[in-house]
Amino acid sequence: MRQSMFVLNTHAKRRGLNEITESVRGWVSKQEIRSGLLTLFCRHTSASLLIQENAAHAVRNDLEKFFDEIAPEGAALYEHDDEGPDDMPAHLKTALTQVQLNVPVMDGRLMLGTWQGIYLFEHRAHPSTREIVLHLAGE
Amino acid sequence: MRQSMFVLNTHAKRRGLNEITESVRGWVSKQEIRSGLLTLFCRHTSASLLIQENAAHAVRNDLEKFFDEIAPEGAALYEHDDEGPDDMPAHLKTALTQVQLNVPVMDGRLMLGTWQGIYLFEHRAHPSTREIVLHLAGE
Amino acid sequence: MRQSMFVLNTHAKRRGLNEITESVRGWVSKQEIRSGLLTLFCRHTSASLLIQENAAHAVRNDLEKFFDEIAPEGAALYEHDDEGPDDMPAHLKTALTQVQLNVPVMDGRLMLGTWQGIYLFEHRAHPSTREIVLHLAGE
Repeated sequence: MRQSMFVLNTHAKRRGLNEITESVRGWVSKQEIRSGLLTLFCRHTSASLLIQENAAHAVRNDLEKFFDEIAPEGAALYEHDDEGPDDMPAHLKTALTQVQLNVPVMDGRLMLGTWQGIYLFEHRAHPSTREIVLHLAGE
Repeated sequence: MRQSMFVLNTHAKRRGLNEITESVRGWVSKQEIRSGLLTLFCRHTSASLLIQENAAHAVRNDLEKFFDEIAPEGAALYEHDDEGPDDMPAHLKTALTQVQLNVPVMDGRLMLGTWQGIYLFEHRAHPSTREIVLHLAGE
Repeated sequence: MRQSMFVLNTHAKRRGLNEITESVRGWVSKQEIRSGLLTLFCRHTSASLLIQENAAHAVRNDLEKFFDEIAPEGAALYEHDDEGPDDMPAHLKTALTQVQLNVPVMDGRLMLGTWQGIYLFEHRAHPSTREIVLHLAGE
């Protein structure tokens, strides 16, 4: 077994779910490892990673609305608001989802299901560049 | 180090938490890898994986009730309902839990705690067969 | 590639977020693997792992308050209360977060972001010692 690592810099176009499947697939396809395990790790506390439906746009809208409602903005709700009203909700949404994901790779292909895409879930209103570490181990 | 991969097909008996620990353990025990890391990956967006209490049935009931309440059915709540009222809640419950899990393996044994079991968390009322990729790397 | 495994015993000082980054970093720094993937696995169903902000204490307070509100104590709410009012909320909070995490390691360093710390999220009022399996694979 061998491994390969890379830091993918991504700038979300908007708050919410931004698909990164193609960028990830592109990097994996260039590695010599054909079979193994891919890990993604987001080096931030106000953006997360999610595997979700990549067909219906309405699913994405509903997902974003759900997380906005479960972790709403509101000065009275939080002690921490150093960086504005979207600061603490961003931490909560990150805690409810994940900053790291695994996807098996077989014959050079990500083993995502038919309807699965990999998303950077950007929780800040004014996104900055996000670093996502890609790690692939296999043979 | 070496690796081993398998696609486990599982059909949940019911909506909710369906324990799959024994199927997973069975596959692991047949591999020549005695020590390493097991990864499970669910190739779906309306079913997820969860490690939880495997002793008290009441815990499972309460968990299912909790997720039903946090992501309720209701036509007025969601834009997306292509596949019926359980469609969008299924995506939300999947987003709140995980489609991938890691469990270390030592001396051929899954390093689950005494009370931990691995569950397929089926979120659709009429379950179809689910593909769970098992990946084991170690020596 | 090679691997290394260790069981870290941790006793949380209090209910809530207890940072364990230094203990984890300490173990990693003693391994001969300089580059690879670290996995943490919590062998319990009422304590979880979380990567979150390690600078502002207010973030931790708000996170704990949020999870207390989303999964409140209350005898009438749950079927299961064998071990007291904090029992079932502990399982729910564990289900909403994770019992396992991955962190890539590069040049002997955990690839955590500037503001990220690793936390044991203890959900019981009277914490017992928790076992966290550390698995490092790389070269």
